[in-house]
Amino acid sequence: MVIQRNQMKTEVKEKMRGGDGSVAFTHLVDCENEKNIRMLAELTLQPGSSVGYHNHESETEYYLILSGSGTVNDDGELKPVKAGDVVITGNGASHGITNTGAAPLVMHAIIVTY
Amino acid sequence: MVIQRNQMKTEVKEKMRGGDGSVAFTHLVDCENEKNIRMLAELTLQPGSSVGYHNHESETEYYLILSGSGTVNDDGELKPVKAGDVVITGNGASHGITNTGAAPLVMHAIIVTY
Repeated sequence: MVIQRNQMKTEVKEKMRGGDGSVAFTHLVDCENEKNIRMLAELTLQPGSSVGYHNHESETEYYLILSGSGTVNDDGELKPVKAGDVVITGNGASHGITNTGAAPLVMHAIIVTY
Repeated sequence: MVIQRNQMKTEVKEKMRGGDGSVAFTHLVDCENEKNIRMLAELTLQPGSSVGYHNHESETEYYLILSGSGTVNDDGELKPVKAGDVVITGNGASHGITNTGAAPLVMHAIIVTY
């Protein structure tokens, strides 16, 4: 099945997961009919915006950074990230991400369940 | 866990899955230690290059087109794709993709198992 970009829905989430500012959230795949995956999305964080620190139990989230740069709270440790980097968070670990750059931070976010 | 781009391995696959030309294949995540996911990669197809037609049984592959354009064989039906589009292939369906444009076609490819 091919899903064209203009068929996808984008919503703006304010203070996502308790973060700051706003995040444009595009649903790449409606995961209701998919197996072992509950989210496949493209997120755009404006400068200064963030996804708040949160936990992943019985699932793993992958952030694939497409453009921009920021800081990840990687289960309690702050680390810089930039385009091309990947963040893996699962098995009860937590993460959050802040756009600390001057350009939008764009990433794919994928949650695989188990 | 953060994986920096310069820690990732890229290999060039010739005639991938029986396709034409070459595909640069970057392993974004080493999936050996992950659950319900066996591939998370970035693929770059040069103009004219392709991933040959192949089947996905007991798993679903998602192509997230990042840039460029091409033609997907979507379980027997040829369809155009371009940056921003998504291709979903699972439950025994088949697919292949050819870069029919003048620029490289770059995509994320994710295989979720079940």
